[in-house]
Amino acid sequence: MDSKFIVIEGLEGAGKTTARDVVVATLREQGISDIVFTREPGGTPLAEKLRDLIKQGIDGERVTDQAELLMLYAARVQLVENVIKPALASGAWVVGDRHDLSSQAYQGGGRGMDIALMSQLKHSVLGEFAPDMTIYLDVTPEIGLQRARARGELDRIEQESLNFFIRTRQRYLELAASDSRIQTVDATQSIEQVSASIRQVLVAWLKEQR
Amino acid sequence: MDSKFIVIEGLEGAGKTTARDVVVATLREQGISDIVFTREPGGTPLAEKLRDLIKQGIDGERVTDQAELLMLYAARVQLVENVIKPALASGAWVVGDRHDLSSQAYQGGGRGMDIALMSQLKHSVLGEFAPDMTIYLDVTPEIGLQRARARGELDRIEQESLNFFIRTRQRYLELAASDSRIQTVDATQSIEQVSASIRQVLVAWLKEQR
Repeated sequence: MDSKFIVIEGLEGAGKTTARDVVVATLREQGISDIVFTREPGGTPLAEKLRDLIKQGIDGERVTDQAELLMLYAARVQLVENVIKPALASGAWVVGDRHDLSSQAYQGGGRGMDIALMSQLKHSVLGEFAPDMTIYLDVTPEIGLQRARARGELDRIEQESLNFFIRTRQRYLELAASDSRIQTVDATQSIEQVSASIRQVLVAWLKEQR
Repeated sequence: MDSKFIVIEGLEGAGKTTARDVVVATLREQGISDIVFTREPGGTPLAEKLRDLIKQGIDGERVTDQAELLMLYAARVQLVENVIKPALASGAWVVGDRHDLSSQAYQGGGRGMDIALMSQLKHSVLGEFAPDMTIYLDVTPEIGLQRARARGELDRIEQESLNFFIRTRQRYLELAASDSRIQTVDATQSIEQVSASIRQVLVAWLKEQR
């Protein structure tokens, strides 16, 4: 089987870290052990710098919605060209914590950014490149934020209003419904149930790829 | 007269710093003393960070053309929204060392970036915002780079090939020819002659604005 790019998506507190562990354990059971992890924004020296600037801002300067979006795509293209594509070409599988779907949901849905710009950026920056499979962990913002808050301090984005996350989730659900490569898992369940669902979805998908 | 945004453009070594001094002296002679300076990329804490990343890169990571373009526009929107528009609204004049025309020339012409993306970015990020007048200092790359080299070390962009700068100048000339708000000054002349030309162009333009 050719190496694949699998992405885990969802709101804050959806359980992406747990999901990653389940994905990796499941891949290993299937004899796939050469796995590269990525997280977005980030994953290269430049992309990590951009991540810090996006998440923390600098000197209290207001980060405009447009600058945030452009920096996210700058980080993404660095990661895709310098890490993900070379890893896939070398035969490694890539498991990503977030990818383009996050921008579509957070910036497109949450912030209501211009659809034409979103689409042009995706096309110009990524071309036809896309994850082979995305696991979208669906939680209500109420549950997700409660879990995220329990983890400690909230960053600039996690401090957005509840309505922002409601719009973001709505866009996630719309995109998941319209793309067969996105698999939705109910992430409001217990950790054990969510883990079992992820495993089931992934095993079924891997079978189809053989 | 309403406050205006005047931009100085040109290749490396075209003489932008000298031109800025002439512009300021000329504005002062006309009784305009509330002047804000900008340089691009840069001019806000976030934009200056992006400038460093664009010019120096980080840890030897290859900066893709797309990431460079997106970071330039991220820096630009921060500068426009957080500095230039507030300055103009407060009645100050703004004199800028580079603005959008640089991206059109360097990234569009020099790097040959996708025209649809360039146009979409400009529209989405800047809307109808544009300089009231741009002074384009035209030099051949040979002369410009010779002057830049005499100044000391060259940064990542200044190390581009001669052909890159030939394409960049070509795009500058095309854009200057198609936009009446761009005034071209022959910057291969002596400093005294260039300064006199800038002064003449600016005084004539200011008269038209009254």
